[in-house]
Amino acid sequence: MASDRFEKQIGFIVEMDKLKRILRQTILTDHSRQETSAEHSWHLGVMALVLSEYAETGVDLLRVLKMVLVHDLVEIDAGDTYCYDRVETQDQVEREKKAADRLFGLLPEDQAGELRGLWEEFEARKTPEARFAAALDRLQPILQNYHTQGEMWKKNSISSRQVVRRNQPIEDGSPLLWDYVLHLLDDAVKKGMVQT
Amino acid sequence: MASDRFEKQIGFIVEMDKLKRILRQTILTDHSRQETSAEHSWHLGVMALVLSEYAETGVDLLRVLKMVLVHDLVEIDAGDTYCYDRVETQDQVEREKKAADRLFGLLPEDQAGELRGLWEEFEARKTPEARFAAALDRLQPILQNYHTQGEMWKKNSISSRQVVRRNQPIEDGSPLLWDYVLHLLDDAVKKGMVQT
Repeated sequence: MASDRFEKQIGFIVEMDKLKRILRQTILTDHSRQETSAEHSWHLGVMALVLSEYAETGVDLLRVLKMVLVHDLVEIDAGDTYCYDRVETQDQVEREKKAADRLFGLLPEDQAGELRGLWEEFEARKTPEARFAAALDRLQPILQNYHTQGEMWKKNSISSRQVVRRNQPIEDGSPLLWDYVLHLLDDAVKKGMVQT
Repeated sequence: MASDRFEKQIGFIVEMDKLKRILRQTILTDHSRQETSAEHSWHLGVMALVLSEYAETGVDLLRVLKMVLVHDLVEIDAGDTYCYDRVETQDQVEREKKAADRLFGLLPEDQAGELRGLWEEFEARKTPEARFAAALDRLQPILQNYHTQGEMWKKNSISSRQVVRRNQPIEDGSPLLWDYVLHLLDDAVKKGMVQT
């Protein structure tokens, strides 16, 4: 045992621990600290289990789960890019591509191909699974923000218009979830959690 | 929209954020802090993707992923019980059952039934999926311990015999992974990471 294949798989798994060090621009609902990208990815997995009935009919839940589990891996090298940061988002694609080369490249070739393919599919948002996974990826921080009275929206001076513009792709993944987000944002504006 | 069903689902998802507050008796590989149960659950998901070829033939990966995503939810109310703590483990079953009643009970009835069923299946370790998920749940902290030079084994005065006794169920989920663990433990003893 301990074949080259197995050693590569374990090496990848140990490397993945580093996603627990990446901090996001969202905080826990008890306001205690920023959440990590590993925690965020787990949360999306649970959301996929519970909300899959609002995806397009026939969506493959296994593919959605695989996607949300690996969608942020590249942040281990590329860091978390705050979606409202115009400077950082400029070279994000290039940084993340380089990170994907190294990180997925730790795996045996067949698995590197599969997981990288899922990551690229997620980024492209052209399949029902990717659109739904991307919708969850946007809904989750909105929920965190709403349930912390907009602390990070306020801190980063984000307006509800920016939130709408950035999160519009939720509609492609699930019109019902998008309706809910618009309703939540209206309420957030009324309660002074986010500027108009 | 915002039906009773949907409100329950969102309520459950927001409640799940609390799993990010539960600290485990394993640390990150950079020794910076303990990992959270949410991070651990995500790590198991990635492990399942990469290591499923070592499970019993025909194992249903979707069921495994669902199980690892929800296997620790009860800790939100019951806390993380350190597996080597004899006092805490005494009433663990009762505490966790009560937690499962409340937490899965937040969901619509059909989903509460499904996810609670998966949690009970995981705990019982009677299906190939549960045995494999349980093997991953034991392998992950061993990897974290090994790659932090046994810091938590030392801190808690754990012996390699205790590790073997506690983790024997890995063999039922995947004989190959168990072989690897025994090999890793031999090396850990040699390197002074854990007592004999």
